[in-house]
Amino acid sequence: MDVEAARARLAALKVEARALEREIKAAAGHARSPLAPASFPELPTVKGARFAAAEAGVRYRGRDDVMLVLLEPGTTMAAALATSATRAEPVRWCERLRGLPQSEGAQAILVNAGNANAFTGDAGVESVAALAEATARAARVSSEAVWMASTGVIGEPLPHRRIEAVLDGLVAGLAEDRADDAARAIMTTDTFPKGAGERLTLDGRDVAVAGFCKGSGMIAPDMATMLAFVFTDAPVERDLLQTMLGRLCDRSFNAVTVDGDASTSDTLLLAATGGAGGEPIREAGDPRAGALEAALARVMGDLARQVARDGEGASKFVTVRVTGAVSEGSARRVAKAIAESPLVKTAVAGEDPNWGRVVMAVGKAGEPAERDRLTIRFGDVLVAERGWVAPGYREADGAAVMKADEIGITVDLGLGEGEATVWTCDLTHGYVDINADYRS
Amino acid sequence: MDVEAARARLAALKVEARALEREIKAAAGHARSPLAPASFPELPTVKGARFAAAEAGVRYRGRDDVMLVLLEPGTTMAAALATSATRAEPVRWCERLRGLPQSEGAQAILVNAGNANAFTGDAGVESVAALAEATARAARVSSEAVWMASTGVIGEPLPHRRIEAVLDGLVAGLAEDRADDAARAIMTTDTFPKGAGERLTLDGRDVAVAGFCKGSGMIAPDMATMLAFVFTDAPVERDLLQTMLGRLCDRSFNAVTVDGDASTSDTLLLAATGGAGGEPIREAGDPRAGALEAALARVMGDLARQVARDGEGASKFVTVRVTGAVSEGSARRVAKAIAESPLVKTAVAGEDPNWGRVVMAVGKAGEPAERDRLTIRFGDVLVAERGWVAPGYREADGAAVMKADEIGITVDLGLGEGEATVWTCDLTHGYVDINADYRS
Repeated sequence: MDVEAARARLAALKVEARALEREIKAAAGHARSPLAPASFPELPTVKGARFAAAEAGVRYRGRDDVMLVLLEPGTTMAAALATSATRAEPVRWCERLRGLPQSEGAQAILVNAGNANAFTGDAGVESVAALAEATARAARVSSEAVWMASTGVIGEPLPHRRIEAVLDGLVAGLAEDRADDAARAIMTTDTFPKGAGERLTLDGRDVAVAGFCKGSGMIAPDMATMLAFVFTDAPVERDLLQTMLGRLCDRSFNAVTVDGDASTSDTLLLAATGGAGGEPIREAGDPRAGALEAALARVMGDLARQVARDGEGASKFVTVRVTGAVSEGSARRVAKAIAESPLVKTAVAGEDPNWGRVVMAVGKAGEPAERDRLTIRFGDVLVAERGWVAPGYREADGAAVMKADEIGITVDLGLGEGEATVWTCDLTHGYVDINADYRS
Repeated sequence: MDVEAARARLAALKVEARALEREIKAAAGHARSPLAPASFPELPTVKGARFAAAEAGVRYRGRDDVMLVLLEPGTTMAAALATSATRAEPVRWCERLRGLPQSEGAQAILVNAGNANAFTGDAGVESVAALAEATARAARVSSEAVWMASTGVIGEPLPHRRIEAVLDGLVAGLAEDRADDAARAIMTTDTFPKGAGERLTLDGRDVAVAGFCKGSGMIAPDMATMLAFVFTDAPVERDLLQTMLGRLCDRSFNAVTVDGDASTSDTLLLAATGGAGGEPIREAGDPRAGALEAALARVMGDLARQVARDGEGASKFVTVRVTGAVSEGSARRVAKAIAESPLVKTAVAGEDPNWGRVVMAVGKAGEPAERDRLTIRFGDVLVAERGWVAPGYREADGAAVMKADEIGITVDLGLGEGEATVWTCDLTHGYVDINADYRS
């Protein structure tokens, strides 16, 4: 076949392929990520937290798109929020609540999917105030105890009356075992609901930790962003809970990147209901604090990794580990430079053990690094060391590692003790498909 | 057709499409970018600079892959070089030359494509030294007057003897009018050679400015990186030339981004031969300095835009302009955040006037910005102002702008006088194709 004929045939194939893809997509919705867990986990019951979900029709039809969590009086709340200069109204609302004394504690969380209530001017402010008051009335709590988050399209006014209309139903439907419904109600481009939890014993008392989240691009602000809600029935004093959250966030959600784009709506709320009983944990020195923080770290790490596994178009889950950096912060910046490099991510998509791109990404990170001290591994395979390809390295060994669904890229900088791990996914045609689609 | 049948048919189509693509690629090389200029420009003759190209077979076959420039004694040279922690050996060599007194001036530039001589340990250092000496012998100049650059695969030793073998032929072939051959010899994944030049009169003397460059990804370190060589026959004192280059670079090559990945080999050399005659330009206050710098800015801006037009997989050329920032640096960082956002770039690829993603990118830049002062335009269409969609905006108007090959995204932050322009291209399936291909 000559080139002209090949081009013509290819063009025809592409037209047919696109039509088929549209057909498949319409029939199946977004296909479930190949990296998804087999099923939503059985979450432990967190005493003092009840969940409900409902269909308000904010944007989607035929699925739940609003969830409500009601928390027992006295619940403490810690929050990590988007710092973007163009952050959304509910984020600004939560910022305000975080600064208040919370004398009655946090009592409710209201979240909708389909509209982010971001870049909506004064209308956005009014929507948040109206929803806080309506929720307060329906749930008989103070409006300043109602935390909120929204995710979805930006720049369109939130049709908040549709949400108000389902609030009584939400309150009536609250149950301790409906966290899975809540997890489904906050999905946007997510292809699976994300949950994690565990049980532990603190000082002879049974304690539960459970959470769920959504996120698919680190952000795709017209359709997705990252929201996470984590609950424990351990009693934890508020300042300590907020301190814990800072550390936990760095090692979980702040260690995930899909496309390096930062959300206008990122919201992570951590609530401690105290429902398990016992004296409040007030200080880091309390032996219960360490055990609880470790459990929270496992649950939040699990949730964060599920976000990378559901990265838009993901076909590979990638763990980037950097050791030997001059500090933990430096290690994290190098790991992010690797994990966010489009050239590294496309190489992973192509199953190409292209270690030269890892060298490039280390170099561009702007952190201390010396060529002759650098060691690079793909999985367990030593690829490069001392400024050059490793003597025993065979390309076939690197290529074999890249064929797996889960890939480890490890870089030792040989300079200090700083270590960090970042999770990401590859950059595929699927990412371009999802994000280059005209909004419809 | 049911979904299963559609999936099976799609899989078969993809297999056939990939085979056709390989066939077309093999027959045609990389297809010329749709944004390429019609032809390589007629470059003016720079007196005192002669060019030659040859086939050394470093990696490619059947094309020139080495170029040599010989410069008259007394030529001054300014250099802007990659700062990556893992920068290549020729970059380190040029750094050293930049720090030397250059009593005899810069006399030669030797460049090869196909191998970047980066991350090659001691072998890389030896290759550079050997090539400098061999070039010095062949051209009868000092080895410390021989500047160098390499571009191509990294982590493989440079087969420098193949280059040494063609040096005598290169010297014999030197000519004032062979800059176009030199421009072709340094291409890697570039789909067209990039040149620009102009003539001007300084104090009654005819002066020429001409240059060429290569670059396609901001970097794809196994196949591409950005190299640029610019020449003038104006006489310019060395320190002044270096000062000019810093300013010129910020507004040309530093204002281009394809994928945000920074090269290990970026090299920009600016040579002033003095061949046009006249007293050397020594100070910025010399009226000739301003006129020359303006001409250099036009030529280098032209070259830089050609790099974005040849961005890997590019289907749209995008000019991001930010005004009203608190400073020029702040404006540039906001413009880069927009230009490097995968979500903005995929929206452009999909011809989607998705201004929400521009809002997101402004927010994540970490620079002063206020939602209620933000104005966004696509082309001439006012899209958003004062924290919300503009009252008169119709989606159809935005969509019409996005259909063009060349798209302007303008953001006014409404805070100060800082302005910057950055050029980029869209993120398409072509980018994934080029970079996810297993190296073969």
